[in-house]
Amino acid sequence: MAAAKPENLSLVVHGPGDLRLENYPIPEPGPNEVLLKMHSVGICGSDVHYWQHGRIGDFIVKKPMVLGHEASGTVVKVGSLVKHLQQGDRVAIEPGAPREIDEFCKIGRYNLSPTIFFCATPPDDGNLCRFYKHDANFCYKLPDNVTFEEGALIEPLSVGIHTCRRAGVTLGNKVFVCGAGPIGLVNLLVAKAMGAAQVVVTDLSASRLAKAKEAGADFVLQITNESPQEIASKVEGLLGGKPEVTIECTGAEAAIQAGIYATCPGGTLMLVGLGSEMVNVPLVHAAIREVDIKGVFRYCNTWPMAISMLASKSVNVKSLVTHRFPLEKALEAFETSKKGLGLKVMIKCDPNDQNP
Amino acid sequence: MAAAKPENLSLVVHGPGDLRLENYPIPEPGPNEVLLKMHSVGICGSDVHYWQHGRIGDFIVKKPMVLGHEASGTVVKVGSLVKHLQQGDRVAIEPGAPREIDEFCKIGRYNLSPTIFFCATPPDDGNLCRFYKHDANFCYKLPDNVTFEEGALIEPLSVGIHTCRRAGVTLGNKVFVCGAGPIGLVNLLVAKAMGAAQVVVTDLSASRLAKAKEAGADFVLQITNESPQEIASKVEGLLGGKPEVTIECTGAEAAIQAGIYATCPGGTLMLVGLGSEMVNVPLVHAAIREVDIKGVFRYCNTWPMAISMLASKSVNVKSLVTHRFPLEKALEAFETSKKGLGLKVMIKCDPNDQNP
Amino acid sequence: MAAAKPENLSLVVHGPGDLRLENYPIPEPGPNEVLLKMHSVGICGSDVHYWQHGRIGDFIVKKPMVLGHEASGTVVKVGSLVKHLQQGDRVAIEPGAPREIDEFCKIGRYNLSPTIFFCATPPDDGNLCRFYKHDANFCYKLPDNVTFEEGALIEPLSVGIHTCRRAGVTLGNKVFVCGAGPIGLVNLLVAKAMGAAQVVVTDLSASRLAKAKEAGADFVLQITNESPQEIASKVEGLLGGKPEVTIECTGAEAAIQAGIYATCPGGTLMLVGLGSEMVNVPLVHAAIREVDIKGVFRYCNTWPMAISMLASKSVNVKSLVTHRFPLEKALEAFETSKKGLGLKVMIKCDPNDQNP
Amino acid sequence: MAAAKPENLSLVVHGPGDLRLENYPIPEPGPNEVLLKMHSVGICGSDVHYWQHGRIGDFIVKKPMVLGHEASGTVVKVGSLVKHLQQGDRVAIEPGAPREIDEFCKIGRYNLSPTIFFCATPPDDGNLCRFYKHDANFCYKLPDNVTFEEGALIEPLSVGIHTCRRAGVTLGNKVFVCGAGPIGLVNLLVAKAMGAAQVVVTDLSASRLAKAKEAGADFVLQITNESPQEIASKVEGLLGGKPEVTIECTGAEAAIQAGIYATCPGGTLMLVGLGSEMVNVPLVHAAIREVDIKGVFRYCNTWPMAISMLASKSVNVKSLVTHRFPLEKALEAFETSKKGLGLKVMIKCDPNDQNP
Repeated sequence: MAAAKPENLSLVVHGPGDLRLENYPIPEPGPNEVLLKMHSVGICGSDVHYWQHGRIGDFIVKKPMVLGHEASGTVVKVGSLVKHLQQGDRVAIEPGAPREIDEFCKIGRYNLSPTIFFCATPPDDGNLCRFYKHDANFCYKLPDNVTFEEGALIEPLSVGIHTCRRAGVTLGNKVFVCGAGPIGLVNLLVAKAMGAAQVVVTDLSASRLAKAKEAGADFVLQITNESPQEIASKVEGLLGGKPEVTIECTGAEAAIQAGIYATCPGGTLMLVGLGSEMVNVPLVHAAIREVDIKGVFRYCNTWPMAISMLASKSVNVKSLVTHRFPLEKALEAFETSKKGLGLKVMIKCDPNDQNP
Repeated sequence: MAAAKPENLSLVVHGPGDLRLENYPIPEPGPNEVLLKMHSVGICGSDVHYWQHGRIGDFIVKKPMVLGHEASGTVVKVGSLVKHLQQGDRVAIEPGAPREIDEFCKIGRYNLSPTIFFCATPPDDGNLCRFYKHDANFCYKLPDNVTFEEGALIEPLSVGIHTCRRAGVTLGNKVFVCGAGPIGLVNLLVAKAMGAAQVVVTDLSASRLAKAKEAGADFVLQITNESPQEIASKVEGLLGGKPEVTIECTGAEAAIQAGIYATCPGGTLMLVGLGSEMVNVPLVHAAIREVDIKGVFRYCNTWPMAISMLASKSVNVKSLVTHRFPLEKALEAFETSKKGLGLKVMIKCDPNDQNP
Repeated sequence: MAAAKPENLSLVVHGPGDLRLENYPIPEPGPNEVLLKMHSVGICGSDVHYWQHGRIGDFIVKKPMVLGHEASGTVVKVGSLVKHLQQGDRVAIEPGAPREIDEFCKIGRYNLSPTIFFCATPPDDGNLCRFYKHDANFCYKLPDNVTFEEGALIEPLSVGIHTCRRAGVTLGNKVFVCGAGPIGLVNLLVAKAMGAAQVVVTDLSASRLAKAKEAGADFVLQITNESPQEIASKVEGLLGGKPEVTIECTGAEAAIQAGIYATCPGGTLMLVGLGSEMVNVPLVHAAIREVDIKGVFRYCNTWPMAISMLASKSVNVKSLVTHRFPLEKALEAFETSKKGLGLKVMIKCDPNDQNP
Repeated sequence: MAAAKPENLSLVVHGPGDLRLENYPIPEPGPNEVLLKMHSVGICGSDVHYWQHGRIGDFIVKKPMVLGHEASGTVVKVGSLVKHLQQGDRVAIEPGAPREIDEFCKIGRYNLSPTIFFCATPPDDGNLCRFYKHDANFCYKLPDNVTFEEGALIEPLSVGIHTCRRAGVTLGNKVFVCGAGPIGLVNLLVAKAMGAAQVVVTDLSASRLAKAKEAGADFVLQITNESPQEIASKVEGLLGGKPEVTIECTGAEAAIQAGIYATCPGGTLMLVGLGSEMVNVPLVHAAIREVDIKGVFRYCNTWPMAISMLASKSVNVKSLVTHRFPLEKALEAFETSKKGLGLKVMIKCDPNDQNP
């Protein structure tokens, strides 16, 4: 490739099992957009899923799509109408940016807007590349004391924030987090930051639970072949009472059942993990104890508070990153992520700066 | 029986299918209680169920129990510590009266208190009798312009209030009420009173739907053999959009499924009807659209607002009463209720005043 | 004026006391805008104030400004990106349309956005004219059974909705509305629609109170020279208890004081009327009884629910209109409004259709 | 004193300036009460105020009253109906215990109940004594890892919890605490525990601010002769933006004004400090920016969550205690507290155990 042609190396999924590093043109930002030189992009389970299966539910990869949506970078070009950002600003990217000001946007729940743009959800391209343009209103300036990787980790952290906020986690709560993967861990971190007194985390994997313990779990519980009722009973035993909030991050039917049995009357069960279309659950057991069941779809209004938390060191996400690869080795990074080694694999998109 | 002995005719269930009118002693009110001369008591589906089956779930009739919990009467004797009531006061009875000031009571959700007294839930006696004593704090004085029967109907109305309040029904809402029995109808009435713009009611029975239409339903939809998705689609068509709130009053699995499909993103599905222990439902379809699923267990803090509404004629419940029987004919009344004829069967406990 | 030149007669304030009917050019809608043929525009107290004083607080008329912000009309031209509206659609106009997607917009409180466009607030032009362009996302299609005047009245109705919603008015509430002008009346209407059992309205003017009575006030109270405490006491007497919600629509210091004294412990005092910069109030009397004091700044997220209510006939605003003038007689209309005759003066902007 | 006579040394206020140590009889617990051997009791500003002035507002010391309401002790005798406590249990005492199950209790806001018993509020005796009986439902068992002094400090901590909860303090918030006395400090601690990212504390006293800094304040600001607007501006400068929540703990008019100017649009100003009956404030400045103004009256539903927090070491209150005196030297302790030396003066009531 001639030096004259600007390079924009991008990680593109073409279909199930077909992942390629390709050179894309550098995009031109529109009047409300900024062009970003990408720095750090985390790999999410959904990225791996699109690579392996070419689809998630009704979202199907029908044309080549750039992956990546946990990201941060530096502003290199500013659209004509953008006022709050300028060249050189380090920013975290909120991957969902509404295309229309519809009724969901107006009430502050823009994540529910059916026409929203979302990085690396077909057909919208993500930002695992050198250069990427994005709606400037959904790029948030990072303070000097927040690293690019922390900026990228705001995305998974946002799932925790949105979940714990919708759950109403508050001072002194007992919380049961089901699943010790990255999403379980950010929920643990956020629940503690919101004042939860005791959090128990369950998982099948002892090594994941060790990570949870390091991250601040008060109790961990390795699941083997307990029934949902037995899990609920053990959770209650560890916490000294039924949890006010249960955060289910696995999507497994048995785990949802355990969540219903475990949660105290008047409490809330959050469904974060996604599993089968249909599940068999003791709904009446939740209903007559007024255990509310709520899901989350992505997040909204989380970046500003996440940045405040990171800047004030109220929450520590740095230890979530266990692996780093340069963009050129993205396929290797995806293999690592697929194997479930470690927690968060971070891809470094700036060849001149591979720092956190 | 000698005339000297005061009579307290009571309707007592002894076990499945064994319902008897018996003469009980007149109870003596404790210091915080009042003795009531009963006037009007509605028959609830649960009363009929205890008569037919001797149990509801884990609540089992192990010893003879007086039925009845939708009730009003007149204070005839006042406990020594009671200040807000006096002899002659006409009152409506809230059947659930906490026995302990536990954490649920302290936060205002006393309906969840595990040790609560509740009329006609084993082993607590109800008030289908001539004379009944009750915690004075859970007897509410009726204004002159509210009848005894309206007072008795506050109990089913309270289910509607508690449900619509937990659902967050508000101005301009589209509401889908599934089931046109008494509970469906009180939810319809309350939803309208809280500002719902359009309510659609579904049922299998055309005659019940005719009642719903009379009571103010904007639309009714008779269900035959539609799939849950088809029901959801028809509901959306009638309302001109998906409802913000769905109130499921049947407990049927297919109806819960329809409720999930029907409710708009960000909306709420209320589970009021109780069916099978386990149900097969598309929970992920609710979760990713942030449709919250909430149940209700009885009610709390509804009597004062119900009385205000009845006194100000903001809601009309009188037409719910379709049959009346004197207490002496209670067995006939129960047969009528069992057959599902009409809506609410009212038993008149005062031999000297059988007026509404 | 030559027939070739398109006419856009507009009512323009140039400074204190200087109101003129002028011919403006017909504007060209941008890609996200629609051009509207105006039909009905209500005169608001703020319009009269700009005419009389050339300013409201820090908002100063520094260049000629078209008045009017309670409006409805018909779409005559559609911007290139607009999808939800087409030529011929009858619409109500939400006068505040955010210019930026800032943090207030994102959380659903766009009324607080500091850069919002707002009709007839300097320097933004209003819509008392023949043709007007507006952000299409803030134009709402009217159903056939809602008149243009009802559409225009959504603006004052929105003040009532936003206020009662922030106040948490709910079933069975006792509400005290202070002031029987148009804003007092819309609060009365909305409070009743949200389930308030009893509303008392106070005012100095007997004729205004007569209007409030007609509009559904349960009680009216004419204020003469009572102290704030005396007013509070009379309100309590009429309602049979202290109101849970007080809605203060006059801005008078004594009325705010009365509102604090009147509201029940745990209740809410809404400040809707705007008066002096500094007021002397018994704040501690509110604080120690946990009476929350909340203001409103315009409104947000009210048009859709208002349209639902009007379409379903849940609220009747038609009787608020007491006078009508064609646009050509706008100055006469403003004189009428200034004199405080009647309630709402409506200006009819379409020379070919002067119907409601 | 004869050995036969059981001793109950008590600190009794008889009127302004008249504080005496007297021997009271040991009380007998009623069926729902427990008798406690008192251990640690903190001195509150209100205790000092009753001693100095014989009254606070309408609460007047008309007969001798035992002081003290920040307290913990050990159960020595259990009423016949008490189930959840037994002899030897170490407990923290919630000083407000409702006498009636009124409407405020039923909705979970029992602190507003007008007939509530409250320690050391005339005419109710407090617990600065050797032996004290209290409603068992308002005594909370302390875990082994929570000291008696921490138990006593739950009372001031509860003011912080109730305030921050009513303020809606949440993740990432900027908070302005006005006043660095004990109440300011507990609000600081609780705001941080609920996820506040940055808290600025203001006071006139440099030494108090030093304590605030130690306790975790991100910024402190010593007030000299700034105007309210200047204070607001400095607070904004320190926080990098206007605070979402302001917690006013001084009651000074100028501080309330500063709180109104400082708080961001859509934010909340909490009034905790109590000052003059009437204050002159820019209420309209709060209203049009939708800054809600809320007070607190004591607290409710805080002990269980405070105990959870203390047990899990989520909050550290131990450093609030700066002085300790045995009950025999209570007058000296009160002199110390009056002089404003240190923060919290703790009185040790158990002659055999003066440990924290």
